[in-house]
Amino acid sequence: MPRKPIRVSFQGELGAFSHMAIRQLLGPRAEALPFPQFEKIFRAVTEGEADAAMVPVENTLHGSVHENYDHLVRFPIPIVAETSVRIVHNLIAPPGVRFRDVKRVFSHPVALNQCLDFFAANPAIEKCVYYDTAGSVKMVATEKPPGGAAIASALAAELYGCRILRKSIEDDRENFTRFVLVSANAGLAPPATRGYKTSVVFTLRNMPGSLFRALSGLAIRDINLDKIESRPLRGKPWEYLFYLDFLGHASEERVRNALRHLEEFADMFRVLGSYPRAHR
Amino acid sequence: MPRKPIRVSFQGELGAFSHMAIRQLLGPRAEALPFPQFEKIFRAVTEGEADAAMVPVENTLHGSVHENYDHLVRFPIPIVAETSVRIVHNLIAPPGVRFRDVKRVFSHPVALNQCLDFFAANPAIEKCVYYDTAGSVKMVATEKPPGGAAIASALAAELYGCRILRKSIEDDRENFTRFVLVSANAGLAPPATRGYKTSVVFTLRNMPGSLFRALSGLAIRDINLDKIESRPLRGKPWEYLFYLDFLGHASEERVRNALRHLEEFADMFRVLGSYPRAHR
Repeated sequence: MPRKPIRVSFQGELGAFSHMAIRQLLGPRAEALPFPQFEKIFRAVTEGEADAAMVPVENTLHGSVHENYDHLVRFPIPIVAETSVRIVHNLIAPPGVRFRDVKRVFSHPVALNQCLDFFAANPAIEKCVYYDTAGSVKMVATEKPPGGAAIASALAAELYGCRILRKSIEDDRENFTRFVLVSANAGLAPPATRGYKTSVVFTLRNMPGSLFRALSGLAIRDINLDKIESRPLRGKPWEYLFYLDFLGHASEERVRNALRHLEEFADMFRVLGSYPRAHR
Repeated sequence: MPRKPIRVSFQGELGAFSHMAIRQLLGPRAEALPFPQFEKIFRAVTEGEADAAMVPVENTLHGSVHENYDHLVRFPIPIVAETSVRIVHNLIAPPGVRFRDVKRVFSHPVALNQCLDFFAANPAIEKCVYYDTAGSVKMVATEKPPGGAAIASALAAELYGCRILRKSIEDDRENFTRFVLVSANAGLAPPATRGYKTSVVFTLRNMPGSLFRALSGLAIRDINLDKIESRPLRGKPWEYLFYLDFLGHASEERVRNALRHLEEFADMFRVLGSYPRAHR
């Protein structure tokens, strides 16, 4: 392990759920570097500005983040770890503001819409849209709008010196985001207590039998799929991009053989990485 | 065809992209009924308030809308049609406002973030977050904030008596949303000029060989898959929900046989509908 802090790029403001993912996976030794766009977090790694990037790839309510799969294919930085963060929304206000003082709650519209039961139970409180969940905490902390509170992560409350007035006000507790850590430094991977997972992306033409044939290479070797998803390629009818996660490490012989089989049937083919499987 | 207007529920404000999907698929004979939440658009159909609901199920940038797949499984209303809408963002202002007058542009943060090239090229224009794309046009049309414009669909400009100052300012033209129309009235389906598609949802346990076996029933009958996606079921490790679209109609014998085969291997199994395949 290097002694100096590990610099990890992420999209959003300090205190964002991506920042929580960095804390959860790497602990306090990581230095989180915020960027406004996803592409920039990958570029920060290729240009040596960051040692790793924390990339959200799917959410239990909103599906896969296709943009980031495109970046994973385009930037040659392997996945070295994964982690899953439960999206917990908290009502957060600057010190001194009590719950009964709260008149307006700022947050990203997606977060506001995930707390509709809270707003239904508190009809006097107004929802106010803001760019970002963590950014809304920063704003109420610095500008102190009268009766202003925010909805964001517990980490955002901590970072901007605010207090949590109500914990976990989200409607749906089954809201998780899965992140992958990309880095040239395989030493950032946590211990593989639950074995390994391998992620690949490939394209197949004329899907019917071809997916079945491609998958047969995994099935006959008893390799467990963990995720499969097709995505039509616009402008290329009958060509599909596939995301596949399966259990096992690319260095195992049966996995190597299965990958060779998959590659034979695919047009484009990329192994995104083999990494320790996270608890979910 | 019934003479009276077809009432179609959708989520969002009048002028939303879902409203465009209704126009695109059913033309002016449809009456669009706006609702604030997705669940409500389904409920409107089961309670007889609407004849059909227009449901976004996936976007080329943002993936599948899992919430709506859950509603499709829960509400017993079949899919009778599909359509795909290109997400075109326009800069829209009330009559009399010229481009050089524009100081602030209101829209949903997702839309604002899909027009970053425009804002980079026009650094004097401020991005202002708003709840909704179409709603931001309604707001600038009625409240006329000084130098205020909005980003939304051409339909929103038309409905709220505004003008398009700049067409198609989105960064990525490959941004499409696929919608399905659910209704008890199969007569709402357009002509099947490109054949049929069938959508099913099912769960499989212990995925490895089981998906391969389940798919074999399609492969040996030369049935073309059009979409496959797995979704882990939280709290049920090793159980997965699958979305599958394939070409063919559930009334064809080979499709009936393949469905029987799929059902044999699945725990939960639902045919969401057979419907004419849209052009993409």
